[in-house]
Amino acid sequence: MTVPARPTHAETMRGLNLALVLEQIARHQPVTRARLSDLTGLTKTTVANLVSSLETLRLVASAGPVREGGRGRPGAPLSLAPGPVAGLGLEVNGHYLAACVLDLTGAVRQREHVRVDNRGRDAQVTVDALAALARRVTARAGDDGLTVAGTAVALPGVFVEGRVNAPNLGWEAVPAAAMLTEALPAQAHGVEVDNEANLAALGELWYGAGRGAGSYLYLSGETGIGAGIVVGGELFRGAHGAAGELGHVVVDPGGAACPCGGVGCLEQVAGLDAVLRAGGIDDGEESSESRLTELVRRLDEGDGNAHRAINAAGRGLAIALVGAVNLLDPDTVVLGGLHARLGPWLIPPIEAAVTRGGGRLRARVPALLPSALAEESAVRGAAGTILSRVLADPLSIG
Amino acid sequence: MTVPARPTHAETMRGLNLALVLEQIARHQPVTRARLSDLTGLTKTTVANLVSSLETLRLVASAGPVREGGRGRPGAPLSLAPGPVAGLGLEVNGHYLAACVLDLTGAVRQREHVRVDNRGRDAQVTVDALAALARRVTARAGDDGLTVAGTAVALPGVFVEGRVNAPNLGWEAVPAAAMLTEALPAQAHGVEVDNEANLAALGELWYGAGRGAGSYLYLSGETGIGAGIVVGGELFRGAHGAAGELGHVVVDPGGAACPCGGVGCLEQVAGLDAVLRAGGIDDGEESSESRLTELVRRLDEGDGNAHRAINAAGRGLAIALVGAVNLLDPDTVVLGGLHARLGPWLIPPIEAAVTRGGGRLRARVPALLPSALAEESAVRGAAGTILSRVLADPLSIG
Repeated sequence: MTVPARPTHAETMRGLNLALVLEQIARHQPVTRARLSDLTGLTKTTVANLVSSLETLRLVASAGPVREGGRGRPGAPLSLAPGPVAGLGLEVNGHYLAACVLDLTGAVRQREHVRVDNRGRDAQVTVDALAALARRVTARAGDDGLTVAGTAVALPGVFVEGRVNAPNLGWEAVPAAAMLTEALPAQAHGVEVDNEANLAALGELWYGAGRGAGSYLYLSGETGIGAGIVVGGELFRGAHGAAGELGHVVVDPGGAACPCGGVGCLEQVAGLDAVLRAGGIDDGEESSESRLTELVRRLDEGDGNAHRAINAAGRGLAIALVGAVNLLDPDTVVLGGLHARLGPWLIPPIEAAVTRGGGRLRARVPALLPSALAEESAVRGAAGTILSRVLADPLSIG
Repeated sequence: MTVPARPTHAETMRGLNLALVLEQIARHQPVTRARLSDLTGLTKTTVANLVSSLETLRLVASAGPVREGGRGRPGAPLSLAPGPVAGLGLEVNGHYLAACVLDLTGAVRQREHVRVDNRGRDAQVTVDALAALARRVTARAGDDGLTVAGTAVALPGVFVEGRVNAPNLGWEAVPAAAMLTEALPAQAHGVEVDNEANLAALGELWYGAGRGAGSYLYLSGETGIGAGIVVGGELFRGAHGAAGELGHVVVDPGGAACPCGGVGCLEQVAGLDAVLRAGGIDDGEESSESRLTELVRRLDEGDGNAHRAINAAGRGLAIALVGAVNLLDPDTVVLGGLHARLGPWLIPPIEAAVTRGGGRLRARVPALLPSALAEESAVRGAAGTILSRVLADPLSIG
């Protein structure tokens, strides 16, 4: 769902070799030039030249003492540079706006989280608020010596021909990438947008609970429910980029109508609003955060309504995930957002159902883990996609 | 799910260039050497040399008059050779054994279909019967001037560490590839095995209803129900090769227990035996083919039981496919086997449900098509995988 076309340098031999050396540094850091020569099959002279270019681009730094001119000793081991190159990740959620800046090592250098109800708010107002947040965070990153190489934004919607449908924000066919690119003109390469569940899946894959998983499913649970599907380390997007709409799997054939047009969708029993409503927690002035805290309190106290609500959500999730596991055969399932918070109540029944349903056919049952990054999964994944592009095409920042 | 390791020649520059030229001949046939030079960027001399090698391997033939020595005139357009190279596809189904031989152009040169009840039969007995069928068909292909370059077998099961679990055959952890390789020693490269739905999906992709589809779902409906998932022209297999178990998606949470360990699985309402049983057609001495014909007759007559059975199957399929479409976002869904036969009754309700469920989120609803190859989908796909390997690695037959 990358929007602006940009020239690629990755196809030239030099671009390929720079990316190859940079990838090996990322994997084996700290690593010497001699070892890089062994790892890549390139001569020592070629490696030295490529490393020198990567140092000039300030993508790698030597671990040893630094000489005049900013270059490390030729014998000193190399690592990814913790600056100045950085990626900016942003998120629009029904209940908050978020931003984070990662340096090339993946360290979080800036973060900000703004509680705000974006549901039903005019899209332009939300975009402007997000742009203001982006400018604040970028300015602070600049004070810290960082330069943002690109911006990616997570949105809770499906992308259809460059426009976003996000029912839980009230957005219909909103040209979000164009609006964001206009609101953030300092971003020379434009602003990318992607589905929140996809970016959160990548965030957990690179920095969270999905590390080490080859093929996995990230469940994004909020007002809406989506899934990010990772296969062999890559996002699976489907034929039109709309894969992963787990929230609209039918779990209750005789159930309630869903705004999507269907009936008995998972979102209707296991989405945040549905669970809170069924748990008897009114949609009052309170933030969803404090209403969720209230639900957890009632669950701890053994409140009957709260337990009926969580049991219904657990049954729905179990049905949807048995189906998804049978179709996709992932090695891991990561529960994010709301469902991570409610993991203690939800994971055991889901685990039991997934073990039973189709279990006799399969070699193993996937591991079921709560998200490690909570509400930061999507912004971390968004910023990470920028870094991942720099690593694949180092000359793109030149 | 390829079992025996074999040396690959595809990595050498010559192997790559041979494959490149062969691929362009397959795509653009009949095609001249001059046009191949334009298409590949290789010099005319290189193309002429490569074509000469492909002629020696008897993989390509010239459309014009043939000179002494079997080579075409240098100016005559080239096509894939309709022999001697051929692929053998085999299938073990609950109700039949099947074989087919395809030449490199994809033409069916031999076929045989044997009605036999393989359910609960000893696996070795079934393997021996399949091997006998393979020998008959291979001998007839030989009489026709063809040489089988490899054999692939479709099995209705899930592969776990090289062994097959096929509940509908009564097979548990059967080392099918090893047994078949032993039963067919003339196959120098061993025998490959794969899931029937996967191979049928490829059969429909290459030769049937899936042609032109980029990403699609093939529904394999028989006693068991599976799906072959094709993404960008490639099979999607999941983390452990067990993706596509659509038959064990939950469609009736309060429904019947399934041998897989789950409850309310699609197979329990839309599998062949379930539909016939619900339709009041006893599991007597009759073949499943004639029982299915009887069901169709009763549907045509307006029989109440038959219509209740098909409606329940349609509802189950609709629920499972709404889920699969939301998760996978395919551009086409192909109904195979039983469900192709019952398409006139099943397709309209499925289409309606898929259009509604999640429909407002998406750009378009996938096309829903009956299989074009009926019971031959899997053997055609199996034989096609052999041809596809020859095209990708022409020296493998040398």
